[in-house]
Amino acid sequence: METMNALIMRDGSIGLESVEIPTPEKGQVLVKSLACGICGSDLHITHHASEVFDLYRSLGIMSDAQDDHTGIMLGHEFCAEVVRHGPQTPQTHPVGSRVTCVPILMTQHQAGIGVTPGVVGAYSEYFIVDEALLLAVPDGLPNEAAALTEPLAVGLHAVNRSAIQPGDVALVAGCGPIGLAVIAALTRRGIETIVASDPNGLKRELAGTLGASHLANPAEEDEVALATDVASGQRVVIFECIGIHTLIDAFIKRAPVGARLVITGVHTTPSEIHYAYATVKELDLTFSYYYTAQEFAECLAVLGDGELAWQHLLTAKVGIDGVSGAFDELTRNKDHIKVMIEPWRRGALEPFQP
Amino acid sequence: METMNALIMRDGSIGLESVEIPTPEKGQVLVKSLACGICGSDLHITHHASEVFDLYRSLGIMSDAQDDHTGIMLGHEFCAEVVRHGPQTPQTHPVGSRVTCVPILMTQHQAGIGVTPGVVGAYSEYFIVDEALLLAVPDGLPNEAAALTEPLAVGLHAVNRSAIQPGDVALVAGCGPIGLAVIAALTRRGIETIVASDPNGLKRELAGTLGASHLANPAEEDEVALATDVASGQRVVIFECIGIHTLIDAFIKRAPVGARLVITGVHTTPSEIHYAYATVKELDLTFSYYYTAQEFAECLAVLGDGELAWQHLLTAKVGIDGVSGAFDELTRNKDHIKVMIEPWRRGALEPFQP
Repeated sequence: METMNALIMRDGSIGLESVEIPTPEKGQVLVKSLACGICGSDLHITHHASEVFDLYRSLGIMSDAQDDHTGIMLGHEFCAEVVRHGPQTPQTHPVGSRVTCVPILMTQHQAGIGVTPGVVGAYSEYFIVDEALLLAVPDGLPNEAAALTEPLAVGLHAVNRSAIQPGDVALVAGCGPIGLAVIAALTRRGIETIVASDPNGLKRELAGTLGASHLANPAEEDEVALATDVASGQRVVIFECIGIHTLIDAFIKRAPVGARLVITGVHTTPSEIHYAYATVKELDLTFSYYYTAQEFAECLAVLGDGELAWQHLLTAKVGIDGVSGAFDELTRNKDHIKVMIEPWRRGALEPFQP
Repeated sequence: METMNALIMRDGSIGLESVEIPTPEKGQVLVKSLACGICGSDLHITHHASEVFDLYRSLGIMSDAQDDHTGIMLGHEFCAEVVRHGPQTPQTHPVGSRVTCVPILMTQHQAGIGVTPGVVGAYSEYFIVDEALLLAVPDGLPNEAAALTEPLAVGLHAVNRSAIQPGDVALVAGCGPIGLAVIAALTRRGIETIVASDPNGLKRELAGTLGASHLANPAEEDEVALATDVASGQRVVIFECIGIHTLIDAFIKRAPVGARLVITGVHTTPSEIHYAYATVKELDLTFSYYYTAQEFAECLAVLGDGELAWQHLLTAKVGIDGVSGAFDELTRNKDHIKVMIEPWRRGALEPFQP
């Protein structure tokens, strides 16, 4: 039995364990994880495991038998290398080629890679993907750039869900990886007025680099009032990319008439809402979570074509034994954007050098 | 000084008072109220005045100086007769002609008729409207039918806001006047599968008469599960026409993937919401409140053309001195659909005879 290093989230913390290398079944491919991004939802599930597991159980993703000690093998933003094909698998992507894909196993009841108990995630040295979903990583595109395809697709999908039109004004609240991905997608779509807000000055600066036309520090000014003012009657589309559930009601109360609020955060805590404000202003609340395979492929192509200065999105890299420390650092230090794990090596968190 | 009978809501109850007949200014017309419907929001504002006033104050509709003892002259669903034109007013609609209009005074800072402190509503013998907004009531259409234009427009607007497409399945939850107006609008639009749910058997029956294809008693079966089942993969659009704020979260939890929830109730109480369910199912929440002048005119035309069996929507009539008793009756007796006030006469609540 061959074993590998794997990171397993259990009881609210991440631990390095030695586990069996999984075996690809028909239609599946064993891949080596070359790079895997740490997602805000990975931190959330680790810090709020029982809350998330309650949600999983009520949605049928987890069985009632699985309790809060169930391990989750995280990692769903990846670039990988083909190692071995399962039986009766076409081998469209030869051994040694670099690939990425939407993190889902159609061959295994559509289980999500990196979130489903019992499924190996890309924080591990090796994991399993569906060959039918694989996309070749363009030559010359670094591993860590290809692994950004997933969060970029989340941003593009939120923009598509928003149905934003030319002339509308966007307010992107929160300039972490998703907020910045939204700004990148809005800029590519030709939206000219993009108000970006974040209490962190480095993130605001980055938002400007990626195409935001107005920058606001919500600790010092009302970013919704600014967007409403700039819009002067045009429709305002607010992208909630903060992930703090108590802020949504404040957006509903402040949003101008006819605004759309796109929720990209996954808010697992029950929240208070004042519906009447949404009613008298006829707001739309649009929830955005996933993305389509087409949106994913579009983002990989954008990266491959050099249309996006992806280097701005990466702040650090870390080896497999440094991830637990990286989680602590990400919780403390809000200057980070995306931290990339390289599960094939050891090493503590170090700044990314493009 | 000429006086008239008027109903004023003050301190949670409706009282008959004698007040000065208002004087039309430039662009305004004094009209006699021939018929005025009792709206669920009239009951709500009466029973929850301080909650609604808090909302009004935060929206700037009421000044901070106006306290919970401020009187509101209700009545916004009306058919009226032109009595006198203000100075420099075109007189497009001659004295004696029957009219209706969107209940708003563009000439008075866009104040809502029947909701704004200091503005006379259509529960009174006489009130003021803008001549520019007036629509002639078609000959042969009874007063009480023309007064139904407003709630029908609320239903049509909710359907327009929903962006429902052929093939989608509608679930209309709550078959009071707004739910039935939604069903009428869906039927006219050619939506074939309409699940109507209400715990009241008479209302369910009426929903079927107006075009619902499936009827559900939510006290006995899960109406969302029924609609999801009937849809078999097609998009489900849920119209919340119940007005009970605690039920919205239950719709969010039960709604199928990709559903849209259209909120037509005005929910002034803070509510609990579990956003994560809306996120993982990528729901849309659309809030519908008002209607356009065009939607209003469309509904009056539908009534005038005899396309809608409006008689089904009316259950009782009442004179001006019977309204307080009618409010008590409507709170107790859930068999009522629309009760029509005839403010020009006295008389207790009596069943409507078409």
